Amino acid sequence: MSTAKATNPLREGLLSRSAPEPCSLVIFGATGDLTHRKLVPALYNLAADGALPPSISVVGFARREKTDEQFRTELEEAARKFSRQKINDDLWANFSGGIYYHRSEFTNLEGYESLARRLDELDAQRGTRGNRLFYLSAGPDQFPVILENLRKSGLNQAREGSWSRVIVEKPFGIDLPSAIALNDMVEGSFAERDTFRIDHYLGKETAQNIMVLRFANAIFEQVWNARYLHHVQITASEPLGVEGRAGYYDKSGAMRDMVQNHLLQLLCLTAMEPPTDLTADAIRDEKVKVLRSLRPLTGPDVARHVVRARYAAGSVNGKDVVGYLDEANIPADSQTETYVALEAHIDNWRWAGVPFFIRVGKRLPKAATEIALHFKSVPPVLFAQTGDAIDDNVLVIRIQPDEGVSLRMSAKLPGSALRIEPVKMDFHYGTSFGKATPEAYERLLLDAMAGDATLFARRDEVEQAWKFVDAIRAAWDSGEGGPVVSYAAGTWGPDEADALVQASGATWRRL
Amino acid sequence: MSTAKATNPLREGLLSRSAPEPCSLVIFGATGDLTHRKLVPALYNLAADGALPPSISVVGFARREKTDEQFRTELEEAARKFSRQKINDDLWANFSGGIYYHRSEFTNLEGYESLARRLDELDAQRGTRGNRLFYLSAGPDQFPVILENLRKSGLNQAREGSWSRVIVEKPFGIDLPSAIALNDMVEGSFAERDTFRIDHYLGKETAQNIMVLRFANAIFEQVWNARYLHHVQITASEPLGVEGRAGYYDKSGAMRDMVQNHLLQLLCLTAMEPPTDLTADAIRDEKVKVLRSLRPLTGPDVARHVVRARYAAGSVNGKDVVGYLDEANIPADSQTETYVALEAHIDNWRWAGVPFFIRVGKRLPKAATEIALHFKSVPPVLFAQTGDAIDDNVLVIRIQPDEGVSLRMSAKLPGSALRIEPVKMDFHYGTSFGKATPEAYERLLLDAMAGDATLFARRDEVEQAWKFVDAIRAAWDSGEGGPVVSYAAGTWGPDEADALVQASGATWRRL
Repeated sequence: MSTAKATNPLREGLLSRSAPEPCSLVIFGATGDLTHRKLVPALYNLAADGALPPSISVVGFARREKTDEQFRTELEEAARKFSRQKINDDLWANFSGGIYYHRSEFTNLEGYESLARRLDELDAQRGTRGNRLFYLSAGPDQFPVILENLRKSGLNQAREGSWSRVIVEKPFGIDLPSAIALNDMVEGSFAERDTFRIDHYLGKETAQNIMVLRFANAIFEQVWNARYLHHVQITASEPLGVEGRAGYYDKSGAMRDMVQNHLLQLLCLTAMEPPTDLTADAIRDEKVKVLRSLRPLTGPDVARHVVRARYAAGSVNGKDVVGYLDEANIPADSQTETYVALEAHIDNWRWAGVPFFIRVGKRLPKAATEIALHFKSVPPVLFAQTGDAIDDNVLVIRIQPDEGVSLRMSAKLPGSALRIEPVKMDFHYGTSFGKATPEAYERLLLDAMAGDATLFARRDEVEQAWKFVDAIRAAWDSGEGGPVVSYAAGTWGPDEADALVQASGATWRRL
Repeated sequence: MSTAKATNPLREGLLSRSAPEPCSLVIFGATGDLTHRKLVPALYNLAADGALPPSISVVGFARREKTDEQFRTELEEAARKFSRQKINDDLWANFSGGIYYHRSEFTNLEGYESLARRLDELDAQRGTRGNRLFYLSAGPDQFPVILENLRKSGLNQAREGSWSRVIVEKPFGIDLPSAIALNDMVEGSFAERDTFRIDHYLGKETAQNIMVLRFANAIFEQVWNARYLHHVQITASEPLGVEGRAGYYDKSGAMRDMVQNHLLQLLCLTAMEPPTDLTADAIRDEKVKVLRSLRPLTGPDVARHVVRARYAAGSVNGKDVVGYLDEANIPADSQTETYVALEAHIDNWRWAGVPFFIRVGKRLPKAATEIALHFKSVPPVLFAQTGDAIDDNVLVIRIQPDEGVSLRMSAKLPGSALRIEPVKMDFHYGTSFGKATPEAYERLLLDAMAGDATLFARRDEVEQAWKFVDAIRAAWDSGEGGPVVSYAAGTWGPDEADALVQASGATWRRL
């Protein structure tokens, strides 16, 4: 499992990242949704952009009987449907020539042994140099057996001068103990440096841009602290309901599905201190420090600082929808939350006294993810006396959609009276750079092929995040944490969430 | 000259400004360019917007023989040509019914006495309540006789409950002694509070907006000082040459024509401390403090910190143009500057060590006025190591054209490599508020009718500005201040100006 690359930490980071290297990408769970909707479109787009390594094989590993040709046809349909680029026939023919199907049960060691032989053949045919990238896109209950069989078949062991890496899809466990167990198991087969825990929010351009905004712009980093900021709001809203994922979702809920990973990762990028350099570990060292500084929410504090809620029937964008409990396959006594709002505090010098409000929910009016930094008010002198309310400055980093940055500021309304109105100074990624931002999976697949773990979650980050989340969930389970309240589908959440921020003199942004 | 209004200073300021009041506006030099291009179009636009006081008379005072009707026809042509709105025939008929012509030599006291009688008649006919606003739009050599005759005829004296005010157009003298003489003379006829020295740059929306930007936005005022800013650039550029104003311009030059008034006013608005309140005098108190804190430029310092230049032949926007010395009516031995660049320092706590670079010139590539605040560099760590130059943040306040605010910042170029590029977060007045900003003269005329002197230069401001300018000009005259250098028309000025800012590690913005 040692690798020839990535021994020099200076080569791993954002700064002088290596090129993605020739390899075989083996996808476990290759007939699933993720492969069709995300992975293969991402790979095709990279091929079309000439960004893939000079040689690459993609091997689907799954149970169903299927020929290479059938698999390619299936993926072509998916690529035509989900790719951000129109599929070019010649290019597809060339690209799909490197796609193979390997049929096996996940539990069958022989299937892995035959995979090993097949990969050796492909190395010879295609020049993929013995490099292997295993993508665990199956259900998490399958991870143990897959990892065990990778180890038994020796596929986790790279030959001298090659590498063998694993990409783990979320969920990284369902709580701290299961995450530790999973991480131990992964560690039994792959070194941490060869383990790439994917959080696709980190692959989004604007998430990556947070560090650039902060550390390449004097005006921002200077005011990025408790002296100037009143509070921070991090929102991830979506209009969708459970959409046929009832089985998974009801066991998970918004806290585990979104807060533990995506939202806390965005919080880390927003709140971290400047890293010593741009290597993967220097950055992740700073992120985990934020998680370690999070004030734990436990017992009755949870009832005060965390709101959990579930959508009732309502109307989203003009369409009537049922409540969560009336969705197919949701148990009538479900206590699962589809919405969480919480007030986090980071107990360090930079953030003392600045609440970080996190909000995530299904069946909200709009799909949007953003980080909003709310500045303290100007002193109530001068223009405050005009009678016009002066809105506080808000710096907004839009993660999706319409990636960009805006600053809400106050300006004088043209005319002879002195009227002050909020206006927006705006920057749009798309229009400014004249091209669409790449999909998160494109970036992340390339990074894994290059051995750059910067945008992947490290073991200690994942476990620290579970620690924070588990304490909240324990209070919920014990009854100290407050009940599941209700919000009508199509609204911005329950009244309790409004009260939560109002206690700090804030109001949620209407996106 | 006492007035019923404006006795309560709280009523004078930006905050709760009074409405413009019925009055007779008497324009001395009514057949001149300013009346045609600016004053009458501004008045018509105000009428069209319903912003004028309920009753108003406009009386042109000039030498030439003319009937009211001829005068109105003349002004109608001008309004059709120069108004920002299309002229509506009915509205014009109504508006122009209040326009009158009063023929007299400026030197003839009887002309003023008959004017006084005529204004009394108009008061009775039109309900203008004995309020008089005298607009000195004649040549400055005429000011003494006009002011003297206004005093002799008693027109400067308002009746109980009425007011009598004077608007003085620039130039306010040609140096400190002449400015003092002029101010003394004005003061002999009108109190300072009834004297409105017009600087049309102050009437521009964005100039007014500087205070709002600073004092209604926490993010800006917090960084508006030497701790965060590296330097400030104030630019006023125009592609025009002397354009038939050779007689005036060659006696004045860029320093007197632009720096002494407009540029130093913008510098004051940019650099001033927050006023105690929004009254005219509180604001002007802070502005004059900036002028008093300006480090004097004298003797050999002038050669080091001030560049004067004159355009040579060249090409502006594709059109070949002659050099300044070859313009009609410019003496061959002229030493007049058409371009000035200077480095000013404000010796107070806020601005210690921050150069204010001022640049103004004719025959430059573009017409633009702006204030640009250049931030200090980020420390040379992290992204600085990418090899991409990281441009410093620049906050730009565009005074004209396309009034607005933008922030140059660094963002990540989309894609898997870490490339940093400067981008612009932008706010446009016009598109944001969906209407054109009013012309400066519209605002200023209304303010004078309302007795609000906030946007007019106070006596001490004018004199303090002359003091700064005179010292520089004295060094030029003595030969210590450096020669008049040359720049090709259509370029951004002489090399010496580039060297001036480079000495502080800055470069001029290319607009």
